[in-house]
Amino acid sequence: MHPSRPYTVAVLGATGAVGREMLKVLDEHRFPVGELVPLASERSVGEEVLLGNRPFRCKLAEPDAFEGVDIVLASAGGSVSRKLLPEAVKRGAVCIDNSSAFRMDVDVPLVVPEVNPEAVAVHKGIIANPNCSTIQMVVALKPLHDEAQIKRVVVSTYQSVSGAGKKGMDELSKQTVALLNFRPYDVEVHSARIAFNCVPHIGPFIEDDYTQEELKLVYETRKIFGEPEMRVNPTAVRVPVFAGHSESINIEFEKPITPGRARELLGEFPGVVVVDKPHEKQYPMAIDAAERDEVFVGRIRKDRSVDHGLSLWCVADNLRKGAATNAVQIAKLLDAWWHAAQA
Amino acid sequence: MHPSRPYTVAVLGATGAVGREMLKVLDEHRFPVGELVPLASERSVGEEVLLGNRPFRCKLAEPDAFEGVDIVLASAGGSVSRKLLPEAVKRGAVCIDNSSAFRMDVDVPLVVPEVNPEAVAVHKGIIANPNCSTIQMVVALKPLHDEAQIKRVVVSTYQSVSGAGKKGMDELSKQTVALLNFRPYDVEVHSARIAFNCVPHIGPFIEDDYTQEELKLVYETRKIFGEPEMRVNPTAVRVPVFAGHSESINIEFEKPITPGRARELLGEFPGVVVVDKPHEKQYPMAIDAAERDEVFVGRIRKDRSVDHGLSLWCVADNLRKGAATNAVQIAKLLDAWWHAAQA
Repeated sequence: MHPSRPYTVAVLGATGAVGREMLKVLDEHRFPVGELVPLASERSVGEEVLLGNRPFRCKLAEPDAFEGVDIVLASAGGSVSRKLLPEAVKRGAVCIDNSSAFRMDVDVPLVVPEVNPEAVAVHKGIIANPNCSTIQMVVALKPLHDEAQIKRVVVSTYQSVSGAGKKGMDELSKQTVALLNFRPYDVEVHSARIAFNCVPHIGPFIEDDYTQEELKLVYETRKIFGEPEMRVNPTAVRVPVFAGHSESINIEFEKPITPGRARELLGEFPGVVVVDKPHEKQYPMAIDAAERDEVFVGRIRKDRSVDHGLSLWCVADNLRKGAATNAVQIAKLLDAWWHAAQA
Repeated sequence: MHPSRPYTVAVLGATGAVGREMLKVLDEHRFPVGELVPLASERSVGEEVLLGNRPFRCKLAEPDAFEGVDIVLASAGGSVSRKLLPEAVKRGAVCIDNSSAFRMDVDVPLVVPEVNPEAVAVHKGIIANPNCSTIQMVVALKPLHDEAQIKRVVVSTYQSVSGAGKKGMDELSKQTVALLNFRPYDVEVHSARIAFNCVPHIGPFIEDDYTQEELKLVYETRKIFGEPEMRVNPTAVRVPVFAGHSESINIEFEKPITPGRARELLGEFPGVVVVDKPHEKQYPMAIDAAERDEVFVGRIRKDRSVDHGLSLWCVADNLRKGAATNAVQIAKLLDAWWHAAQA
């Protein structure tokens, strides 16, 4: 028995940067929410959040809060997800988790709706949302991979501070103001001063001196494509941008593919906007991607250093397509599937 | 007959960002300057510049200003160099040119002293200083190329606004202040708003949708290494950083080379500082490279996506090693060569 419209939807971590974005996207996409259950840690219980213009007060995130919930959108960090989502599943909810807690579990589908929607069908209560930098990259790669088969990817990221939440954004503001006023500044959230600087360090260093953020680009991409050997070399860098991740992506293919053909394929692909008239200063930029749901791709050009190569520049709002939008899109896949099963 | 110490040195474009840095570096390196001839356009004639604490007034940059000059350090843009440097050569000066005017001329050596000092010997009056982003990259690549032979390089840059001179820096300041105060801002110097944004466009688009800035990384690198077929795929991006260019460099080699061996080779290489203890948050960053003459290399790690690959992160002050320092180092090569010839 599948749940039926409208759904009781819990948002776990409702007061965080991604949680608030999830509420906005649920409303904008007119997702059939019957009852909303915003959940937060003790610190934020009672805080008000909005769905459209309807106010809701956050309840405590605890196992019994999931009674009667159909869908959980979770963005409260890995340890909270690990503790609470199995409780939600026990109580009959399907969880879409934005943390990295379950992403690599064999039993948990890792889904980007434009790329591997079919994976949703095999969930056991938890579906994982990939990392922001992975989501936008796989969307840009998918139609090209289908056409010419990817041999190897080299990606360098230019990641905004909103990837570190509201406190990451606040630190950039505060440091910028301090520096412009010749005052001292604090470094607490990012690994080093981020204002007017680039920091090649996001997340802990875990394997061969790669960061966790970098390895997500390797392992999550392989899992989403179902290509366990896909070759990806990543460098993840934090830059002083408030919102929107940019990525410089170089791709070697097995088969020939021209920039024109890539533009055509990407232009037809759902969720992608091609912005590629460089002579008219039209290329994707973080400031243009803010608050948008799509992945923007441009600077598509032939890489003459290999037989079949392309380079491109890919930008998306990391809080939207990189997190909230992708999660809501997964909820919409579930809705469509359940609705079809009942029809 | 070579000129002898101390030299009469002209600095062409003395009031620009690079010109002022040249004066600082000449002083710091104790270059044997007898007479200094600072030259500027009509707008800046009479303006004062400093060599150490000695003030000098700028004279008009015109052919006769080069009478009696031994060495010209030029950083006044390509068209000025093209017009005036042949006049200086006619009058017996040797010119070290920071513009792109002569870099690809077969008769003009393109020199990075740590990489191809021998090229200085064959000049015909003009020696070209490579572009900032090329200089720091070839310094980082040279010892690795000598050891394991480079097969292919994929580079993405994170370039500071000082690459567009003082007006490029002013625009970042002004836009930042305007945005923090919710006021409108102008875009004049950079291709798009640079404050809190990344702009994948530096210089004009000229070939296959690559920018001039990107193609410099290809053609200049090949010329400096004397490897006309060397494979380099570049992406050049402006970031909201005042000074210091960062580069994410991925290298495929013909022969095996470990990260440890690369660290050892780079550590012994002149002009390089290895900053590579990522677990202690030690990696190169633009804010640490400012005002420094060296090229900083870190995040050196194995690229498991190819047989013999490394990725690394390379940072240098684009006005120093990327321009002024490299030019003064070339002057020092000339001095050593002339001095040896006289001994």
